[in-house]
Amino acid sequence: MIIDCHGHYTTAPAQLQAFRDAQLAHFRDPSKPEPALAAISDDEIRESIENNQLRLLRERGADLTIFSPKASGMAHHEGDLAISQVWSRISNDLIHRVCTLFPENFIGVCQLPQNPEAPVETSVEELRRCVLELGFVGANLNPDPSGGWWKGRPLTDRSWYPLYEALVELDVPAMIHVSGSCNDNHHHTGAHYLNADTSAFMQLIQGDLFADFPDLRLIIPHGGGAVPYHWGRYRGLADMLKKPPLAEHLMKNVFFDTCVYHQPGIDLLFEVIDVDNILFASEMLGAVKGIDPETGRYFDDTKRYVDALDIPESAKAKVFEGNARRVYPRLDAALKAQGR
Amino acid sequence: MIIDCHGHYTTAPAQLQAFRDAQLAHFRDPSKPEPALAAISDDEIRESIENNQLRLLRERGADLTIFSPKASGMAHHEGDLAISQVWSRISNDLIHRVCTLFPENFIGVCQLPQNPEAPVETSVEELRRCVLELGFVGANLNPDPSGGWWKGRPLTDRSWYPLYEALVELDVPAMIHVSGSCNDNHHHTGAHYLNADTSAFMQLIQGDLFADFPDLRLIIPHGGGAVPYHWGRYRGLADMLKKPPLAEHLMKNVFFDTCVYHQPGIDLLFEVIDVDNILFASEMLGAVKGIDPETGRYFDDTKRYVDALDIPESAKAKVFEGNARRVYPRLDAALKAQGR
Repeated sequence: MIIDCHGHYTTAPAQLQAFRDAQLAHFRDPSKPEPALAAISDDEIRESIENNQLRLLRERGADLTIFSPKASGMAHHEGDLAISQVWSRISNDLIHRVCTLFPENFIGVCQLPQNPEAPVETSVEELRRCVLELGFVGANLNPDPSGGWWKGRPLTDRSWYPLYEALVELDVPAMIHVSGSCNDNHHHTGAHYLNADTSAFMQLIQGDLFADFPDLRLIIPHGGGAVPYHWGRYRGLADMLKKPPLAEHLMKNVFFDTCVYHQPGIDLLFEVIDVDNILFASEMLGAVKGIDPETGRYFDDTKRYVDALDIPESAKAKVFEGNARRVYPRLDAALKAQGR
Repeated sequence: MIIDCHGHYTTAPAQLQAFRDAQLAHFRDPSKPEPALAAISDDEIRESIENNQLRLLRERGADLTIFSPKASGMAHHEGDLAISQVWSRISNDLIHRVCTLFPENFIGVCQLPQNPEAPVETSVEELRRCVLELGFVGANLNPDPSGGWWKGRPLTDRSWYPLYEALVELDVPAMIHVSGSCNDNHHHTGAHYLNADTSAFMQLIQGDLFADFPDLRLIIPHGGGAVPYHWGRYRGLADMLKKPPLAEHLMKNVFFDTCVYHQPGIDLLFEVIDVDNILFASEMLGAVKGIDPETGRYFDDTKRYVDALDIPESAKAKVFEGNARRVYPRLDAALKAQGR
């Protein structure tokens, strides 16, 4: 089977964004009414999925998406901790409804109620709820909850450890994924996302996080940002910083996805990164929506690029399925419970 | 001949850094003495170059380096405008001395006296001095003089235009190059540099800078950051933003260097970027100093990677020489005056 480890609910019914707008309006001006999420019917959810992610999943021949709230919508820099908690809960509950309506095609990954002013342990409760009550299999961890200003601490700082402890205890991985950028210098999908991937990887090189958390698993999306393209630089920097070789220092715990939207990029990724560290993903729907005039195919139809690789079928099976089952053990258990 | 378009004077005699330390100490505490640069002899400069950059240039079979002050040393976020002006002048004068001592091997590119609080027109005078009086052929332009906090405006903002006007008038290009990072999230050579390259390119996609400055030429170093690896994403984003194709929108004016420290990265660069837009460079000395255990060669010996490409000799000649002469017309003129 083919598992896409990185999809976002960018097509949620309009009631969700209306709630968010009203929530932030109320936060800024408490004289405005405190909103509640307007009812969303199952049919509305079905329609939003069947005409979009599910249609594309089927057209492209994939089976299941590991599904999370819209990344740019998390906006942990907006409002305060309480705002983030309510917003995360509502967003995650909607993912849960999608997964309940389409149990064979979607499984949840949660948004965390981070806030730049709040310690990360305040995210642990929502992580537990999503994993233990809603059947989610992972979390999206924002390394920059300040939204493009990078006011917080690197991922190797001990302040993050309570979250890592919970991830390890629950046996779920985190995808390192920023949200929107409120810094005009960094376009969100064209700069901030990739830069965050790159900075996160370098932070991990500088630190020794996996000495403290040998069982922690982190997915760096968008093909690892700039990292595979500059793999020589990173091997060299690890050496200059007197760290072990990357295979040993990081690559038992760090995984890259295949959200790289052209064949030469995917070719490079597979040339330099061990196939055990690559997870199939498309990031659909919406980061790059169009059709590549050079191929006549959607830029984000990343399955075609992987299909075109001259590697053994057994390697493709790892990338499409086996690695995801290994990195997300709760996904594997859920699939086995379905007889898959 | 073989021109390396990106080298830094990372090996300057210790008097330079001693001056800088004293300069900043005086800035922070005016009761401390106002320093002057201690005398540096020609022999000291010769030694610092002959044992380092020139030795490697010769060993690797290159001829000339377009040479600028140490990038992380620019530190435009330190002190104020006056500090930056004095520091830039001293740093550029030292580059000039190197170029005067080794006129066949080094030609200058200047550090600009930027400061996050100062308008960029305050850099024009030093640019003019370096080009018109010292024979420099370009400038390093820091897109983030706040040193990793990105507090300024994108490169397409009109506040940058006075500098672009001067660059066009003088017919010199700028390399977009940040300095050190004072944000712990972003290691300088492992994250901030590459992220700046990526953000700068995306800023240029979002804007229409070259409609206003059709003759402006910008070099994005470090192989263009994450851009070539994600070339499909950028082509798709340009399309989503209703911009012309990149070949037309940016690639008459934007150039990438070859500071990518492994063969697969260089292969990708040449696969996706037109050979007319690639300039040979190594970034030596110092970004990544070691020897790659996989090849037994220095990571930053980028000439080997270009030599190994299966492309016509005429294409290599462009990358090694022709493109640099075209992008840096004052370099071309200086070489012709030397009969080269």
